[in-house]
Amino acid sequence: MSNKRIVSGMRPTGKLHLGHFHGVLANWRELQEEYECFFFAADWHSLTTEYDNTAGIRQNTDEMILDWLAFGVDPAKCVIFRQSRVPQHAELNLILSMITPVSWLERNPTYKEMQENLSTKDLSTFGFLGYPVLMASDIIVYKASKVPVGHDQLPHLEITREIARRFNYLYNREVFPEPAALLTETPKVLGLDGRKMSKSYGNAIFLSESAEETRKKVMSMVTDTQRVRRSDPGEPDRCVAFSLNSLYLPEEKKADIYAGCRSAAIGCVECKKLQAEYLVQTLAPYRARRDELTEKPGLVAEILAEGEARAATEAARTMAEVRDALNL
Amino acid sequence: MSNKRIVSGMRPTGKLHLGHFHGVLANWRELQEEYECFFFAADWHSLTTEYDNTAGIRQNTDEMILDWLAFGVDPAKCVIFRQSRVPQHAELNLILSMITPVSWLERNPTYKEMQENLSTKDLSTFGFLGYPVLMASDIIVYKASKVPVGHDQLPHLEITREIARRFNYLYNREVFPEPAALLTETPKVLGLDGRKMSKSYGNAIFLSESAEETRKKVMSMVTDTQRVRRSDPGEPDRCVAFSLNSLYLPEEKKADIYAGCRSAAIGCVECKKLQAEYLVQTLAPYRARRDELTEKPGLVAEILAEGEARAATEAARTMAEVRDALNL
Repeated sequence: MSNKRIVSGMRPTGKLHLGHFHGVLANWRELQEEYECFFFAADWHSLTTEYDNTAGIRQNTDEMILDWLAFGVDPAKCVIFRQSRVPQHAELNLILSMITPVSWLERNPTYKEMQENLSTKDLSTFGFLGYPVLMASDIIVYKASKVPVGHDQLPHLEITREIARRFNYLYNREVFPEPAALLTETPKVLGLDGRKMSKSYGNAIFLSESAEETRKKVMSMVTDTQRVRRSDPGEPDRCVAFSLNSLYLPEEKKADIYAGCRSAAIGCVECKKLQAEYLVQTLAPYRARRDELTEKPGLVAEILAEGEARAATEAARTMAEVRDALNL
Repeated sequence: MSNKRIVSGMRPTGKLHLGHFHGVLANWRELQEEYECFFFAADWHSLTTEYDNTAGIRQNTDEMILDWLAFGVDPAKCVIFRQSRVPQHAELNLILSMITPVSWLERNPTYKEMQENLSTKDLSTFGFLGYPVLMASDIIVYKASKVPVGHDQLPHLEITREIARRFNYLYNREVFPEPAALLTETPKVLGLDGRKMSKSYGNAIFLSESAEETRKKVMSMVTDTQRVRRSDPGEPDRCVAFSLNSLYLPEEKKADIYAGCRSAAIGCVECKKLQAEYLVQTLAPYRARRDELTEKPGLVAEILAEGEARAATEAARTMAEVRDALNL
């Protein structure tokens, strides 16, 4: 077992946007330099909330994996796979379900919360109640030492740690290390309308869209609403466009914009054109890489097949220990 | 898909006794002549109530399989396997958990009943709540057309049927036939003390014990308690020993005993000796076969390996359809 192993997954919701890039992928790109990383498409997890809407799962998964690969997740450095192709996750999920009290799951803070917030979805299924058990399986089947999480996911990771501890206690051997949280700070990424960037808000800039689409979207972004006339001085810190695009600006350009906006030397249209170019240029090589990958679907299939074989080999090794611990 | 396929499993509780023989094995022996049968050791199921007591699972499974094979379950006629060696059961269990409402499981009549009756066991786990889902997976992963059940198991089979129906409805294709109940009448088998034969009552005659042990047990059985003296006439219908042993007596011997007991022509000791011989003689060839199998453990391993490969091939075919239905 490696003590520098990380597991992290993402539900296949389709094409990724800049929010995913800064929230997850940028982090994964750094982690893969330091850790042995297992990154997976959590397609089974998406059934917990979307069991009656599965038409797009496979395509969403494919698009997401393309985005991962194009935007810097490197199959030479980490293991990339689809959860549903490593059946050991399901086997461990079954075993862990036998030792997990229902009360741990009912007390999971996000359980009731999601049932209230997603009131248009049916979240009354056995699988939805049990998703922390599946999450625990995903992580500990690889004996991960660390899991990158945000603050909101800490309670889930705590259930994972409790399940691992309970298994080791019941079967009197240290099969599973307790994975530690690797708390991750990520920049807040605003969408076109100033709300959090989200596909469902229709305010997202997608990794896979064309430069032209991105330019158009940036030009449609809200700026400082208190700057009414071109001649009024503005405030970049109140500007939605600047909030997003400053992530892509070199420091000296940011300084120029602060000065030019505040002195009314530069107008919003001109300013956003400039910002859009930096964004488009930053994304260009990745988008080119994505286009290449799209034209060679065999390559992605090959990468996944290799990742899934590696993941299954690791997971099978753990499951042999699990079966042995239970005398199965 | 065969429309004459049966699936049935037994939890590995250890060496089987005459109650299991008449309650299950005798029935399986008949079914295998007419149906394509999948018989499995439900070792994962035993975790629902025994997750903290797994030391004996493997040995109990081996002993049980030996009893099956020795007492007439024929690997040339049916598929014999251990549930835990066919991971597709766990994979389907995970998928079905996503479409099964928790309320179906909470309303399962045996759920509360078992929690009350087995108050010394921890039955508060997620896996115990979900065992009807696992049972459904065990059955429909082979697209069974029929399941041999007693009256008490009808509610579980009904959940299986509901889950199959819901899957077909949600994914708009007939992947799973709804398995029908094959209601089975079995004789009531009394143990040495007149209660139902059960390992936990310590009143069982085991399939694998020696003829000498069986003879001793029969001689210890209660007879007609109202027949106080040897010269008193007795009543075989009140005699515990006769209740059990008459299952092994030819009709003319039964008539002899009725007459001899009622006229006090035969005493209880002599009568039980006679009965014991018929029982021992009936069991003798099976016990000899069991001894043979015990001496060739490689043979059982081979039979299981073959059964597990056949089961996995069938189950994998179903899972391919399931993944396709869900776009996984």
